[in-house]
Amino acid sequence: MSNAKRVKLNGTNSDFLIVKSKPEMSVNETSQSSQVATNITYQKSTIAKLDRLGTFSSKNQNGCTVWFTGLSCSGKTTLSFALEEYLVKTRRISTYTLDGDNIRHGLNSNLGFSPEDRTENIRRIGEVSKLFADSGIVCLSSFISPYHADRQRVRDIHQKFGLPFVEVYVKAPLEVCEQRDVKGLYKKARSGLIKDFTAIHSKYEEPANPEIILETSKFSISDCVQKIINYLDQNKILSQPNEKVSLKQKELFVKAENSDQLKTECGNFFQLSINRTEMQWLQVLSEGWAHPLRGFMHEDQYLQTLHFNCIKQNNQMFNQSVPIVLSCSEADKQSLSGKKEVALNFNEKLVGFMTNITIYPHRKEERCARQFGLVNARHPYQKYIFEECGDWLIGGDLHVFERVRWQDGLDEYRLTPFELNEKFQEIKADAIFAFQLRNPIHNGHALLMRDTRKFLLDKGYKNPVLLLHPLGGWTKDDDAPLHVRIEQHKAVLEDGNYLDANSTIMAIFPSPMMYAGPTEVQWHAKTRMNAGANFYIVGRDPAGMPHPDTKVDIYDPTHGSRVLQMAPGLEDLKIVPFKVAAYNKTLNQMDYFDASNASNFEFISGTKMRKLAREGELPPDGFMVRKAWDILAGYYKSLNQK
Amino acid sequence: MSNAKRVKLNGTNSDFLIVKSKPEMSVNETSQSSQVATNITYQKSTIAKLDRLGTFSSKNQNGCTVWFTGLSCSGKTTLSFALEEYLVKTRRISTYTLDGDNIRHGLNSNLGFSPEDRTENIRRIGEVSKLFADSGIVCLSSFISPYHADRQRVRDIHQKFGLPFVEVYVKAPLEVCEQRDVKGLYKKARSGLIKDFTAIHSKYEEPANPEIILETSKFSISDCVQKIINYLDQNKILSQPNEKVSLKQKELFVKAENSDQLKTECGNFFQLSINRTEMQWLQVLSEGWAHPLRGFMHEDQYLQTLHFNCIKQNNQMFNQSVPIVLSCSEADKQSLSGKKEVALNFNEKLVGFMTNITIYPHRKEERCARQFGLVNARHPYQKYIFEECGDWLIGGDLHVFERVRWQDGLDEYRLTPFELNEKFQEIKADAIFAFQLRNPIHNGHALLMRDTRKFLLDKGYKNPVLLLHPLGGWTKDDDAPLHVRIEQHKAVLEDGNYLDANSTIMAIFPSPMMYAGPTEVQWHAKTRMNAGANFYIVGRDPAGMPHPDTKVDIYDPTHGSRVLQMAPGLEDLKIVPFKVAAYNKTLNQMDYFDASNASNFEFISGTKMRKLAREGELPPDGFMVRKAWDILAGYYKSLNQK
Repeated sequence: MSNAKRVKLNGTNSDFLIVKSKPEMSVNETSQSSQVATNITYQKSTIAKLDRLGTFSSKNQNGCTVWFTGLSCSGKTTLSFALEEYLVKTRRISTYTLDGDNIRHGLNSNLGFSPEDRTENIRRIGEVSKLFADSGIVCLSSFISPYHADRQRVRDIHQKFGLPFVEVYVKAPLEVCEQRDVKGLYKKARSGLIKDFTAIHSKYEEPANPEIILETSKFSISDCVQKIINYLDQNKILSQPNEKVSLKQKELFVKAENSDQLKTECGNFFQLSINRTEMQWLQVLSEGWAHPLRGFMHEDQYLQTLHFNCIKQNNQMFNQSVPIVLSCSEADKQSLSGKKEVALNFNEKLVGFMTNITIYPHRKEERCARQFGLVNARHPYQKYIFEECGDWLIGGDLHVFERVRWQDGLDEYRLTPFELNEKFQEIKADAIFAFQLRNPIHNGHALLMRDTRKFLLDKGYKNPVLLLHPLGGWTKDDDAPLHVRIEQHKAVLEDGNYLDANSTIMAIFPSPMMYAGPTEVQWHAKTRMNAGANFYIVGRDPAGMPHPDTKVDIYDPTHGSRVLQMAPGLEDLKIVPFKVAAYNKTLNQMDYFDASNASNFEFISGTKMRKLAREGELPPDGFMVRKAWDILAGYYKSLNQK
Repeated sequence: MSNAKRVKLNGTNSDFLIVKSKPEMSVNETSQSSQVATNITYQKSTIAKLDRLGTFSSKNQNGCTVWFTGLSCSGKTTLSFALEEYLVKTRRISTYTLDGDNIRHGLNSNLGFSPEDRTENIRRIGEVSKLFADSGIVCLSSFISPYHADRQRVRDIHQKFGLPFVEVYVKAPLEVCEQRDVKGLYKKARSGLIKDFTAIHSKYEEPANPEIILETSKFSISDCVQKIINYLDQNKILSQPNEKVSLKQKELFVKAENSDQLKTECGNFFQLSINRTEMQWLQVLSEGWAHPLRGFMHEDQYLQTLHFNCIKQNNQMFNQSVPIVLSCSEADKQSLSGKKEVALNFNEKLVGFMTNITIYPHRKEERCARQFGLVNARHPYQKYIFEECGDWLIGGDLHVFERVRWQDGLDEYRLTPFELNEKFQEIKADAIFAFQLRNPIHNGHALLMRDTRKFLLDKGYKNPVLLLHPLGGWTKDDDAPLHVRIEQHKAVLEDGNYLDANSTIMAIFPSPMMYAGPTEVQWHAKTRMNAGANFYIVGRDPAGMPHPDTKVDIYDPTHGSRVLQMAPGLEDLKIVPFKVAAYNKTLNQMDYFDASNASNFEFISGTKMRKLAREGELPPDGFMVRKAWDILAGYYKSLNQK
């Protein structure tokens, strides 16, 4: 584009420069040397990349460039804007669009359309895209960029600096583009009013190997955008630095090869016995459900949990609404005085240890108030806290020797987030919607899960998969036990009329139940997000129960879903609120409750269900898969006999 | 820099183009027209600026360019990196640095150092700076940029797009720069090894009217950086969009000219009587302390407050830890059924009204548990909630007719955030540190306030001002009443030996006291931040009190300060934690407690102080300004007589 002095960096990371032109010209305004390269110094900013990334909200994002290339009217700008809208509004990711508007009138206002100016045009845009990507922004560049060599050079610039470059070929037949011809440019080009028009007078060189091809004449805008997002997600290009922590890295297991030595070392530590519920929490932590926690909570994490339902780490807000704590007695505390480690035993077997321990008071009244919104020793989990937990809490880095196994015939269903993810990948799921439950599945639940799948298919997902995820830890006495529920769920899946076994993964969520309403529903959602879920179904009064004194619901039944939708740190999880299902007496099936025809509906409560089951009666047709009902009825009848 | 086709946009925002060169050249690659301007269309992104800004964390920032110009070795890069470090690490503001490193080797690698290439160099950098500023980033550009005209052009580009441009002239005498000569470039230039070196061979044109001049030979790096930050702050360049809401706009008063008509309209609304405490909350809301609240809370705000101690609005997290709610009875609720407005009366006088009202249950047990961390009807504020507040809460947009006045002789001390800010500006405060108190000032408090001022002066602030801000709303019975405290504070200020009246503004904070410990301390800090404070002094057990049953502190005395330092939405407020002061019996004065010499210290509790006062005895010398003590003693003696 210029006859002038041209200086080329020789394409490597070295500081060596080749000066092609007049000798008096220097290459760096700061150093202002004309001939030598030794005074080109790379002054490094004192801000590490991560610090800079840390300035972005919950989305500590990586920068990248998405480069749209294609004919005029192929749909580049439309797609770029649609992608920007999605990234900014839904994902809250910083983006910036470079296009003819802000480039041709500014930076490149001194360039024309000769081949050499076109090349310089794309070169400069490539350099600016690289700067934006380097700053941590998703740069969307939307230019015809007809020449392969130019695009390759932009790719090279990015690769040299380790910045992701995604070439999107927006492909549409010339006839289609010419038909669209929204601005009448093709018409002018055909008539000769415009010269040098790509694909009419000059060549468009198709990308040989673009990351993505979008055929805009065949697919909708939303399909095309979804394809880009899927690519970015699958290649972890948009992921936060913390998401780069792989699911394996989130686990807290010791390496097998160090196990023997560490077990020996544990012999020197104070031996603390943990109870069954604490063992369940240890399982939860060790498998990575509670990421970013690296062990039972220290006091700062505990305080953030109680006050903000969130933990801030590396400038990122992680939702963490329930304390995950390990208690000990006054005597234990004294024995641990001055110690940095503690060995953990369950049923007299060494299961793990904690390092860097800190001990702080278990302020039970305050904890219960803030975690449950009431203080009541007859609340089942609070009863556990007041009666079975010690007055001190121990935080530390947890190291667990082996996967926790319960030998109850259900271990095959206990999958870690890592294992779940492998399953999702195996069956090529492109959306995962999670359903938390601690009760039998009736056809109202099934209706909702089916409808969620339908909703996702309509949204353009090709293979949405249901994570049917019953809670497997401690529950209160009158909840149906895990093995009965699993059999019941299996019966519903095997029946096949209500849930599709092929697009469902059933697994057990190892957490204890706390009955903490809106506080706990965040925990249920966050853990499923950690396991890869994108969508979370939330019902009426999640994790609620009747008040021990008044017998009225402790929590407003709508608060769980509302709090969940406002909770910091869960922005990446889309919440699918439950519609209320009831038995439609006209249709003889479960149906969404319609207040204008209330008399057609019957609500069948858990209490009523249990009564029917105990008395050997059947619920109305269509309420629950018959085989599943029989399993449940069998259990309740067996209680009669006891 | 080029002989080639040059196209100029004619300097306005219009789409009209002047084509100066060959007719076959077109100006917009997308439109590819050569002669006409009608096909240059500005495709607007569907993402509004605010949405894009919304992607930045709690810091919904505005972009801008800070342009460092000056001789080689004047300190441009050093200052730019120091500023970047401060902005990213302390303020969490996204920044990006453009310098020789990432520009000369990339975008401008085809430019040399001829005058025309230097001009093109700066033009391109200016355009890229503008793109970064437009994307919402603080762009730090660090280039010698010796020519006035080039810098002016960059300024023009920014102004045209309404983007702030801050020219920083990094000024150091040539001799000093040459002495520094870290890379030996001046030496090479003098010896002829480098040609065209600015200030040796070519001219550096001093900025005629830069926003900031930094004389790096006279001031430290931190002084210089502070000067830039002060400029950015004073001109609200870094401010969040929401901070652009002026203090006046945060107020909820009706316009005087509409007052009569609105009062007439209020005649048609349901008349609700509010109590004295609610009237204090109305004052707090109307003066803008609780920004972004526009009235008593709706349920979504209430839920966020209880669960997250924060309210999210426009993707920004605002700290709001205490519910600000208006209650009503079941009968009021029925009268308000279907209504959108309610008139508010205090002492049978119309004081304001609310529009867009919503009514929701006042779940008192849950509220107390989450707000106070205990449920206890003998806690003084909870007693108020349980006994004096209704079972329903009304949220809505609040409109208040007049400033709330209490006619108690203290109204002159009741300043709104807007009025405080005017005072701060009047006395040219460059840092404001706030001290919340509801007790008499003893010399330990004074010591801390004095030391905070000293700390800020050491930090480079020239005029740090103390906001001495006693709480003026409802307090429990055994706290000293407001008028006594104000007299006591005045005596300390008049004494002059402990506090400096000239750098202190005493005002009354109109909020009621809740005794809600770590939850309330956030409220105390957030309101002072809203009033312009940059620093907040926090003590031991702030807003705490003894448990009504156990008489032990309800809250761990360290939790308030720790929770405050971790609280979302308060990142802009620097927390100055209290050191514990006690009476040093050796020095006969208040002093920081030194655990290694514990026996030298005596803690004089509030209870002991009151006992001394009632019995007409004096505290040890140096505990409190004598005249201030006498005021306090007079009050407590008067209680004896009752």
